[in-house]
Amino acid sequence: MNILLLGAAGFVGTNLTIQLAKEKDVSITLVDKSSNFFGFIDGMNFPNVNIKEVAFKEDTDFDDLTDGQDIVYHLVSTTVPTISNQQIPQELVANVVVTSKLLEACVRNNVKKVVFISSGGTVYGKEVACPLKENTPTNPICSYGVQKVTIEKLLYLYQYMFGLDYRIIRLANPYGPYQRPDGILGAVTTFTYKALMNEEITVYGDGSVVRDFIYIDDAVRAIINIANGKNKHRTFNLGCGYGTSIKEVLDTIQTALKLELRIVYRPGRKVDVPVNYLDISRYEKAYGVLQPISLHEGIKKTAEFMRRVYKIVYTDYYVSLEQVIV
Amino acid sequence: MNILLLGAAGFVGTNLTIQLAKEKDVSITLVDKSSNFFGFIDGMNFPNVNIKEVAFKEDTDFDDLTDGQDIVYHLVSTTVPTISNQQIPQELVANVVVTSKLLEACVRNNVKKVVFISSGGTVYGKEVACPLKENTPTNPICSYGVQKVTIEKLLYLYQYMFGLDYRIIRLANPYGPYQRPDGILGAVTTFTYKALMNEEITVYGDGSVVRDFIYIDDAVRAIINIANGKNKHRTFNLGCGYGTSIKEVLDTIQTALKLELRIVYRPGRKVDVPVNYLDISRYEKAYGVLQPISLHEGIKKTAEFMRRVYKIVYTDYYVSLEQVIV
Repeated sequence: MNILLLGAAGFVGTNLTIQLAKEKDVSITLVDKSSNFFGFIDGMNFPNVNIKEVAFKEDTDFDDLTDGQDIVYHLVSTTVPTISNQQIPQELVANVVVTSKLLEACVRNNVKKVVFISSGGTVYGKEVACPLKENTPTNPICSYGVQKVTIEKLLYLYQYMFGLDYRIIRLANPYGPYQRPDGILGAVTTFTYKALMNEEITVYGDGSVVRDFIYIDDAVRAIINIANGKNKHRTFNLGCGYGTSIKEVLDTIQTALKLELRIVYRPGRKVDVPVNYLDISRYEKAYGVLQPISLHEGIKKTAEFMRRVYKIVYTDYYVSLEQVIV
Repeated sequence: MNILLLGAAGFVGTNLTIQLAKEKDVSITLVDKSSNFFGFIDGMNFPNVNIKEVAFKEDTDFDDLTDGQDIVYHLVSTTVPTISNQQIPQELVANVVVTSKLLEACVRNNVKKVVFISSGGTVYGKEVACPLKENTPTNPICSYGVQKVTIEKLLYLYQYMFGLDYRIIRLANPYGPYQRPDGILGAVTTFTYKALMNEEITVYGDGSVVRDFIYIDDAVRAIINIANGKNKHRTFNLGCGYGTSIKEVLDTIQTALKLELRIVYRPGRKVDVPVNYLDISRYEKAYGVLQPISLHEGIKKTAEFMRRVYKIVYTDYYVSLEQVIV
């Protein structure tokens, strides 16, 4: 089976590749805009993985990319929720319009299935009660969410009109190994890293914002189940299924790592939904109980990974990042 | 009050202009891609109406168009449901992306309200039960519908982020005077015209397709109520509120006009939702009973208009279109 991963160098793509590459009968093509981004995967020397340096743009040759592929994982986003309202028309082109060009090529090349990572954290907006079900109305308060919803509706349309099968995974807030520790996404990973480094942690709002955090291994296992599954539903929420406040995340990091944190509180951001967690009963009914690991355990695993891979060195007086292996 | 109508030369725009222009304290600017399209309105010589020939495109100067405007009516679509799946990426740019550029300009120019004519006939798709309520899930089976849904979500977002007020009118199937009688939209108008002209009427499917037909005067009255209203809801269905099959439309034309019809049946189209009619109780609760005229009465009025304006001449042996006054 031939599998194409678009946006493959990111956090989800890296972890997904590590799992997918274990299968002997698959050939995996990873695509991202710069091959430099594939540091981790490159070092793993998977025999069934090859890398292509291609950007996700209006003039991308999607016919070439999708030729001979069975499953296409669409993991690309050119923006993130917090900054997606700054350039709305451009982001719509870069994500929605370009995705429709991808889907046209998938139809032409008889791709069997498109697996799209949508956003459980943004598609529902803020006017709805948690836990959020898949049939909860979608009224995003950031253009990132509007883009995800529109792509979901395009997938439905292409399936209806042209028979292109798809799966939509409304992923909550994944965290863990290979997530950028200095990025603007991923509170758990970023806070864990800053705790290890004894850096200042910035919290927007009073720490009461609630999110659904899921350890990446649990997420990847479920993504593969959904991608390969035959369930009648094509859209699935994916999170741990309960909410945890930022305050609780900070407390858990402190307890799990036995470290004092340095926290700075900044004013809340309008783009942040106050409370967001997902009802994952559709997934569990279709593919069995998820049994996600606890946040405590996930933070310990994430910290172990960071200590090992980033070689964080402790002394009595300072903490420093000695070397980042990429 | 300054009112801007984009896509003003069309069927809804023409009828809306005729009503809006009756108000003495309004100044109306009509915009469409060719001033030739404004034949009817031009001939009416409204003192408070001026026409601008500007296309709705990516490089349109929306800052110039929206400068000083209080209300912007967005009536533009560059496509229609039946052909909207042929060029999906291009249509997304032409409608969704360009609309976001319009909304950016509205925010910059402090426009008070955007009134958007959405589509009650396509946004809901086919997996849902009629009558359709505003909170019915939206899963369009044509890209025209996806574009409308996405623009609706952008309006919500711009209101949330930037305070731009809006109203969304999910209009069903309007018919009546000033609708193109030879167009690909508007079964009632087209069939009425063809009946008067003794032309062959093409029906896709077996005539069982059900739609919600609303006479344009009823629709325009309600649009203005919604646009000027202060109701807490911003999205309204607008139709007559009940379904009529194509077969019933043809029978009603025959009865109302006392004419024999020549009907040709063609295979059904995948893009046609089988049954579609709207629950208009939200509108009626907010703005009073709609009391739409009957289809029988509407067809008679439409035919009277056509006979008068298009000067349709009857003889024993033929029917011909002598002169179209535009």
